[in-house]
Amino acid sequence: MEKVTEARCFGGRQIRFEHDSDSLNCRMQFSVFLPIRAEKTKVPALYFLSGLTCTDENFSSKSGAQRVANELGLALIIPDTSPRGDQVPDDAEQAYDFGKGAGFYLNATETPWAKHYQMYNYIVSELPALVEQQLPLTDKRAIAGHSMGGHGALVIGLRNSDRYTSISAFSPVTNPTSCPWGEKAFSNYLGNDREQWKPYDAVELINKNGQTLPIRVDQGLDDGFLEEQLKPERLKQAIAEANGDGSVHLHEGYDHSYYFIASFIEAQLRFHAKHLL
Amino acid sequence: MEKVTEARCFGGRQIRFEHDSDSLNCRMQFSVFLPIRAEKTKVPALYFLSGLTCTDENFSSKSGAQRVANELGLALIIPDTSPRGDQVPDDAEQAYDFGKGAGFYLNATETPWAKHYQMYNYIVSELPALVEQQLPLTDKRAIAGHSMGGHGALVIGLRNSDRYTSISAFSPVTNPTSCPWGEKAFSNYLGNDREQWKPYDAVELINKNGQTLPIRVDQGLDDGFLEEQLKPERLKQAIAEANGDGSVHLHEGYDHSYYFIASFIEAQLRFHAKHLL
Repeated sequence: MEKVTEARCFGGRQIRFEHDSDSLNCRMQFSVFLPIRAEKTKVPALYFLSGLTCTDENFSSKSGAQRVANELGLALIIPDTSPRGDQVPDDAEQAYDFGKGAGFYLNATETPWAKHYQMYNYIVSELPALVEQQLPLTDKRAIAGHSMGGHGALVIGLRNSDRYTSISAFSPVTNPTSCPWGEKAFSNYLGNDREQWKPYDAVELINKNGQTLPIRVDQGLDDGFLEEQLKPERLKQAIAEANGDGSVHLHEGYDHSYYFIASFIEAQLRFHAKHLL
Repeated sequence: MEKVTEARCFGGRQIRFEHDSDSLNCRMQFSVFLPIRAEKTKVPALYFLSGLTCTDENFSSKSGAQRVANELGLALIIPDTSPRGDQVPDDAEQAYDFGKGAGFYLNATETPWAKHYQMYNYIVSELPALVEQQLPLTDKRAIAGHSMGGHGALVIGLRNSDRYTSISAFSPVTNPTSCPWGEKAFSNYLGNDREQWKPYDAVELINKNGQTLPIRVDQGLDDGFLEEQLKPERLKQAIAEANGDGSVHLHEGYDHSYYFIASFIEAQLRFHAKHLL
């Protein structure tokens, strides 16, 4: 991997890298924050998966997460949201909710998506192997995300409880097999057999397998996507029925934006630190 | 003025407004952060002037200033960096360092700029009068800025010491009458008589009038504009010769970006709070 940019930030280092991804068959960029502690010793990492239309830069520049990450000695690994490049197929109408910028953190099985849209493998296996080999990181990991990335964090954490210590999400798509964003993406990427969708649905996963990793969710009550796309009450119910260690925090007046993420990222980082450190 | 967007942020409210500006002869947008304290009582305000290419959105979304502003009970007033709209003349080559996005916080005297480029009057008079009439603000003000906006904050604060309590700047253009950005902007906006430039140059102003308001400057030492455009040592020397209350803090490893601003905005807010509250 090659360094593209680097800037000092809250005492640590904010770095953007570029590499050829084997899983995604394209050149990818991602961002990393290394706390000052990483200059002396290996540190654990929180992966943050971003939402529709984002790249690795949105969370990097707007969340302010580096302040508390540096204090706690946590690295942040911030991937892009889909494969990229001219050779990668995109939504026919370049809609914001499918194709580039909208990989949904799954392994596509349908033509023409399957060749590049393998974000599940990229996040679970390829990226951790790469950064843990080349950066001062332990193999302790936690995972978080926003919106589509909150869906990604929940699904990836629930299916790989041996690889992560804890899961958190802002405004996650909790039940994508029954909301418009998920139904559009899953029918295109995975085909029309709805049984194949279930391994990518947090509510279905908890209903089937229970829940072992601790989960924290933050959700704004003035979020315009709340009722149609996000459905936090379904996740809350699944966690309750599984008797799991999870909490859904509802916040009056907050919307779906990075102003919401910036306001509560400290709480999520301190939640993960309890499990990671 | 009309509200364009509003989002809750760190307990307070981040709001974008639009209005017809008399000074600038065009429609303008600006952003405001109101701390939760403003729901009960009037609060003082810090004006933050942004740098080249920015709008009111860069500082709003990237600085993370709202966290400490809410804690301290300070409002943030975040203007745009130039007049806007199709009728406003721009640099012939749409260069980043002149014309739209590069108003340099002065009152232009040359054709065709003078009709719209009156940012000095806008920031000193029109905008405070508007927001203090329509929002829960006292008439206590402090002023800060970044790069071109650091120049603006220094010049406006130094020339209006009765209207502000304190001045701060990140990576300011300290001596625009003798650096490429300033020479290009001032010769176009103000004409070729260099005497007319001096009222818009912080170093010249301190050399001529001394310095009464407290000043805090933060400057990264890995800033690519440091030597050619910013020249913090000249400001430091002018403050020392004026026996003024000012400090220039140099930070190893930091560059010109918002990662630098985010890292030290807390220090600047606490500096202003000592004088504003």
